[in-house]
Amino acid sequence: MTNLDWLEKPVRNINNEYLVAAEQRQNTLTKPPGSLGRMEEVAVQLAAMQATDKPEINNIQIAVFAADHGIAEENVSAFPQVVTLEMVKNFAQGGAAISVLAKQLAANLEVINLGTVSEYEDMPGVVMQRIAPGTQNFSKQAAMSRSQLLEALNAGKEAVYRARENAAQLFIGGDMGIANTTSATAIACALLNEKAEKLAGPGTGLDKQGVSHKASVIEKSLALHQHKMKTPVDILQCVGGFEIAALTGAYLSCAQNGLPVVIDGFISSVAALVAIKINPQARQWMFFSHASAEPGHAMVIQAMQAKPLLDMNMRLGEASGAAILVPLMRLACALQNNMATFEQASVSSKD
Amino acid sequence: MTNLDWLEKPVRNINNEYLVAAEQRQNTLTKPPGSLGRMEEVAVQLAAMQATDKPEINNIQIAVFAADHGIAEENVSAFPQVVTLEMVKNFAQGGAAISVLAKQLAANLEVINLGTVSEYEDMPGVVMQRIAPGTQNFSKQAAMSRSQLLEALNAGKEAVYRARENAAQLFIGGDMGIANTTSATAIACALLNEKAEKLAGPGTGLDKQGVSHKASVIEKSLALHQHKMKTPVDILQCVGGFEIAALTGAYLSCAQNGLPVVIDGFISSVAALVAIKINPQARQWMFFSHASAEPGHAMVIQAMQAKPLLDMNMRLGEASGAAILVPLMRLACALQNNMATFEQASVSSKD
Repeated sequence: MTNLDWLEKPVRNINNEYLVAAEQRQNTLTKPPGSLGRMEEVAVQLAAMQATDKPEINNIQIAVFAADHGIAEENVSAFPQVVTLEMVKNFAQGGAAISVLAKQLAANLEVINLGTVSEYEDMPGVVMQRIAPGTQNFSKQAAMSRSQLLEALNAGKEAVYRARENAAQLFIGGDMGIANTTSATAIACALLNEKAEKLAGPGTGLDKQGVSHKASVIEKSLALHQHKMKTPVDILQCVGGFEIAALTGAYLSCAQNGLPVVIDGFISSVAALVAIKINPQARQWMFFSHASAEPGHAMVIQAMQAKPLLDMNMRLGEASGAAILVPLMRLACALQNNMATFEQASVSSKD
Repeated sequence: MTNLDWLEKPVRNINNEYLVAAEQRQNTLTKPPGSLGRMEEVAVQLAAMQATDKPEINNIQIAVFAADHGIAEENVSAFPQVVTLEMVKNFAQGGAAISVLAKQLAANLEVINLGTVSEYEDMPGVVMQRIAPGTQNFSKQAAMSRSQLLEALNAGKEAVYRARENAAQLFIGGDMGIANTTSATAIACALLNEKAEKLAGPGTGLDKQGVSHKASVIEKSLALHQHKMKTPVDILQCVGGFEIAALTGAYLSCAQNGLPVVIDGFISSVAALVAIKINPQARQWMFFSHASAEPGHAMVIQAMQAKPLLDMNMRLGEASGAAILVPLMRLACALQNNMATFEQASVSSKD
């Protein structure tokens, strides 16, 4: 068993000189200053993260963490629990949304099974890091033990290690786990000191009654654990999930290693919020891809003072919302790197 | 001189059978129904437009129409008029934002010079269709004659003809013309019966005083022409621009020929609004790419009951906002075409 010390290790700082240089270059390019809006912002941030005057995203690592949730037995999801493992297979076989997107982006897709309820044989394309057959039902006891939590956090760190071995220039984490919006909502409520009814949403498709039941399950669980949840890590242990903890570990590790990250939707944003609560400096390595249709997302995003770049009304998870941002980031880099300056193109500047 | 009759020719209808089939397929794919949000909407629309069960966007034609505006002499732009032609050169030489984007998208970029103030020699990559050395100053007289308007509208139609010869599956129109937000704002005010102060914005970068001056120039011009502006076509003639009229002509021609269109920002949206006022059915062939930072855009978009897919705070024109939507449309197609169904992947569906 390792310990938690690595979580709080200092993160790298983004390079301020390259940030300023990239901003200055934007103002010399043949367009009214600022007229490329958030595309400029993305390119400038990336230049500062990569400490370069030619930001680029060729190699991308997408890591989708999958795990089951004991809380599923409280009827908080529209889909049966067996879907988690079925979708792991679907990821590996190329049929899921993120599989299709990863192929289109020429990204390296890795699926990490941290513990589905059903046992299964090894399958190609899936990294097997089984912590347990899902978490415990957190409406009755802590979702996981301390050592299980450490394993999950480390699984995230190890995925980042593999991403770096692949020379990834961008890390995207994703999630799969039936009932994981219940866990993520519980974490968010605990971190933000909010009521479950304010954050709970339909997830994969609950009706109004289902959402209300889900909120009451969360509220009851938060009451059960309230005296044990003193730190963000405690909260992960009490009401978290293996894949959520792995995402938190991955985001912290990316920031420590200076690897830019794109945050996906609700689950990923909650994991990012935990990471930021552990180490606020980790935020500077994050791009926020999209506003999820899951209603709790807006509050989690607000707590990070973020403004997602896209709003496509998506609510799938699997890193799918983060993946669709990638081509825009690539275009932002191309604009930053390849546009002519006013001087080069002999274009007159502002009167 | 041709006449205007072609503008009102019926447009093609999108194929409702393929629309329904594409929607049905979305609901069989391995994801909660609707969870890909607007990505589903894009793919389904495109399937209906292309009358196919495998929508795709390989060939793209981007046509940027450039022209000067007589109204520029009223000091309504932050940039000197000579920039229009300088940017035409920059488009052709690959240094402008749209040049960089077109290259990244492997789109065919065509620049059409409909009339810059400065004369110049032919240059490779620029289609020369000089109507006049810019429009007249519409605060004093009509921006153009009826025959000039026809030429401009036809230039749009001809660009669509060339796009179809290139087997384009998507048409994107763009604009370049110093002072053209003044013209576009005047058109929008006339069409929507709104005051200029409500719609006028900074364009390429006017300060508050500049915007206020611009609004008063527009208000005065609208008063001058009010009795002549009985139809959308009259409005184009009185306060329009060659490039704006060409965009209107192009959008109508696309709809008549069943070629899907992506609308860019403020200028393009005003041209689209004119097209829709001439022939409301043209709207069904339009994707609305992004919410421009130009303040009048929101009202123009609202008048078309549209909801742009992106909001990147861009305000450049040149078709740049439309271009950045293309990779998302391509990903939407890939998801529609390549994801596995629940049955294919043996994934359990909703409880």
